[in-house]
Amino acid sequence: MSVIESETLERSELLDFSIADLGRMMRNGSVSPVELTTACLERIARHDAALNSFITVTAETALSQARRAEAELASGRDRGPFHGIPYALKDNVDTAGILSSSHSKIFIDRKPAESATVAQKLEQAGGILIGKTSTFEFAIGGPSWDLPWPPARNPWNRNYLPGGSSSGSGAAVGARFVPAAIGTDTGGSIRWPAAMCGITGLKPTYGRVSRRGVHPNTYSLDHCGPMTRSAEDCAIMLAACAGYDPLDPGSIDEPVPDYRAALSGSIQGLRIALVRHWYEEDATEEVIAAVDAAVNVLRELGAVVEVVTLDPLRDYVDAKTTISIAELFSVHEKDLRTRPQDFGKLLRSRVMVGGLVRAEDYVQAMRWRAELSTRMMAQFSRFDLLATAGWLAPADPADPDGVDFFKKRQLVTMPFSLAGLPALVVPCGFSQTRLPLSLQIAGRPFDEATVLRAGDAYQRVTDWHRTKPALG
Amino acid sequence: MSVIESETLERSELLDFSIADLGRMMRNGSVSPVELTTACLERIARHDAALNSFITVTAETALSQARRAEAELASGRDRGPFHGIPYALKDNVDTAGILSSSHSKIFIDRKPAESATVAQKLEQAGGILIGKTSTFEFAIGGPSWDLPWPPARNPWNRNYLPGGSSSGSGAAVGARFVPAAIGTDTGGSIRWPAAMCGITGLKPTYGRVSRRGVHPNTYSLDHCGPMTRSAEDCAIMLAACAGYDPLDPGSIDEPVPDYRAALSGSIQGLRIALVRHWYEEDATEEVIAAVDAAVNVLRELGAVVEVVTLDPLRDYVDAKTTISIAELFSVHEKDLRTRPQDFGKLLRSRVMVGGLVRAEDYVQAMRWRAELSTRMMAQFSRFDLLATAGWLAPADPADPDGVDFFKKRQLVTMPFSLAGLPALVVPCGFSQTRLPLSLQIAGRPFDEATVLRAGDAYQRVTDWHRTKPALG
Repeated sequence: MSVIESETLERSELLDFSIADLGRMMRNGSVSPVELTTACLERIARHDAALNSFITVTAETALSQARRAEAELASGRDRGPFHGIPYALKDNVDTAGILSSSHSKIFIDRKPAESATVAQKLEQAGGILIGKTSTFEFAIGGPSWDLPWPPARNPWNRNYLPGGSSSGSGAAVGARFVPAAIGTDTGGSIRWPAAMCGITGLKPTYGRVSRRGVHPNTYSLDHCGPMTRSAEDCAIMLAACAGYDPLDPGSIDEPVPDYRAALSGSIQGLRIALVRHWYEEDATEEVIAAVDAAVNVLRELGAVVEVVTLDPLRDYVDAKTTISIAELFSVHEKDLRTRPQDFGKLLRSRVMVGGLVRAEDYVQAMRWRAELSTRMMAQFSRFDLLATAGWLAPADPADPDGVDFFKKRQLVTMPFSLAGLPALVVPCGFSQTRLPLSLQIAGRPFDEATVLRAGDAYQRVTDWHRTKPALG
Repeated sequence: MSVIESETLERSELLDFSIADLGRMMRNGSVSPVELTTACLERIARHDAALNSFITVTAETALSQARRAEAELASGRDRGPFHGIPYALKDNVDTAGILSSSHSKIFIDRKPAESATVAQKLEQAGGILIGKTSTFEFAIGGPSWDLPWPPARNPWNRNYLPGGSSSGSGAAVGARFVPAAIGTDTGGSIRWPAAMCGITGLKPTYGRVSRRGVHPNTYSLDHCGPMTRSAEDCAIMLAACAGYDPLDPGSIDEPVPDYRAALSGSIQGLRIALVRHWYEEDATEEVIAAVDAAVNVLRELGAVVEVVTLDPLRDYVDAKTTISIAELFSVHEKDLRTRPQDFGKLLRSRVMVGGLVRAEDYVQAMRWRAELSTRMMAQFSRFDLLATAGWLAPADPADPDGVDFFKKRQLVTMPFSLAGLPALVVPCGFSQTRLPLSLQIAGRPFDEATVLRAGDAYQRVTDWHRTKPALG
């Protein structure tokens, strides 16, 4: 007898459980992969018209994968903790035979022959693909209102934006449509929407998760990673999709540890460098107070926290901008020249300028990037983690004529993008407007385990990540 | 009683011994570091006017370091197998208080405050710095006759060139002025002069030896490495200078094995892919025959050799050229704009064009480089080593109005530069003009041990590396 039959648990409430809980429940028979998948599909059908988080819902595939997972689990073929777990993929991730549009008219009917490595791995781990999520066009810039699909909205208040570029993945996990989604992150595109949607998002180390079959934004800065509700769930999803892939030239051959087993709960003696000057001038007061409070929780848990000064945030942003526009132009040049009208205005205006960058500027930016990274890495002789705000403000209003996000704001996610370090955002409060705020924790290359352990320790004693948005 | 006193061994003949032999002799008292250093200085004084291999001879420092090594060894303070060994550094390697000119008028009186990491490490290992060797200007292009110092000459025949850009290091080791020298290699600058001078040169894995304090040529392709007479001596020198350096952003934190201990002598069952198409069309017949003969020796020693086809050599050369000229321009732009007359003509003409490269071209070349490297790396699922010619011809005549080397010739050293793989050249014959020919052996990243083991096995059964040039 399942929970649903025996008690009065609504099917939709299944989606309040964590991946870890759902795994246990599927194995003790209190829920089945098909029930769980049905719960996702029902909730999406009921609420996503208001949030636009999905471009494609793959209901049929999902139910067929769910039935397979159900049969496998029943017959004792256990693929591990991601088996039977529904998830979404950002639409710049290739899926065989399924629209993979990158949210652009350029790819409006693109159904690739082969799935990206990250999609293949999650399928092999027994995950159930629920659909493909909206993004900024080709994961660049900001939300656009002149594309074939509307921009996603924030599940905490649909008059606000969910951040991006993994907007739909953030909104879908925040809205509890799915317990897990894959995002991609070039300068903050996993962490910004995770922060805005009150979920937990991890940009892993550069080279940790394969990008083969993921449409490039900025080759030398692109990462794939998990977006879930908790650090523990990120650990489970990361273990399912990490690993060396010789077909991604940026992939690095490092063993994949059991991330979940590393979540011991204790952070006694962990040394954390708080990079306060990256946010204290430009962040809202609410953000500063919420991050301070979160850091105090880490202190109470036994971490040793010290404020440090690194290079100004602006330096990272400038290096990243030069690198990105040059690489973006190299990816999109042909289409920009032959069918510019098929891009949204925002992408066009942002990427065209990349054609004017000289190799020397790019090389200097790369060299500057290496210097900035080296100085950041030097902190790890004294500290185990770096901490800062996850974002400098709560979500922005969904206004087509509104802000130019990149002009307005310093991107506090970019330093860890440039250095390729693992960086996690965890929810740590709410604004007065009832929008999520967040903390960012980064670690040594390939030390996702410690980053996740700190996030998990924080979430064991706080409830921000368990708070649920009221959908309309 | 030393060998010199007890027998009729000329002091100069000390320099016929390998580093390994000299280490044993210094420890059993048959030679002292001071005697050995004196032998180097005497031989340089007698012969280098004809070869121009040194820009600076640091006789005083050398004798003082030799006396220190002698006292240390006498008192039982043993720094390991490089203790008491004389060596030279290419002049683009910074040495505190000693001219570090990069063979350019631009740096004609540059005496840096601090030594490069590689110089510090060799000093700490007990090595004795004999002097600084000539190079192409800033390690770029080819030999120039319009610089403050003349180009080096080939020790096998001073009417020929020694290759480059580590010309002086190659000539000095080939001439037996010193048993060891440091070269730098961006597209082949260790391996080309090693091949031309009949010595053994190793470009280690990218990131294996620190480049901090070494003047950059092409940042993303620059390597430092040992140039000695044998693979065993390369192993000893590499162990003394390899290792992680947080001050070089390209340095990689991998443990340094005992390379010499890895030289077991046996290569039974080692799988070698011979990349014959890279040289068989453009190499001289003598080169093809010498490489074939060398490969047959490896086969007789138990290696399994198979001919494979990779991307055309031209593809690597084109990618390398685009990357290099862009990075070179970014290094030299300021001086090119403000004091162009202080560069040689060859550097000027080669580097100026880098100002015209667009970031897009550079990015595409880097992407192409990654693809070429990935396909090369795929060979290591079936093979342990890649082999090819060390160079496509014997040395060129020393003619100021002669060849443009880079137009004339495919650079068979470049594929391993682009991929960052460890690559060793070992002498494997002589041309009819009595100039050395060589074989190139490359391996997996950070598997210098296997590369050196193959070179050492070859040298245990051949004598090419023991053959001595007759100086005038």
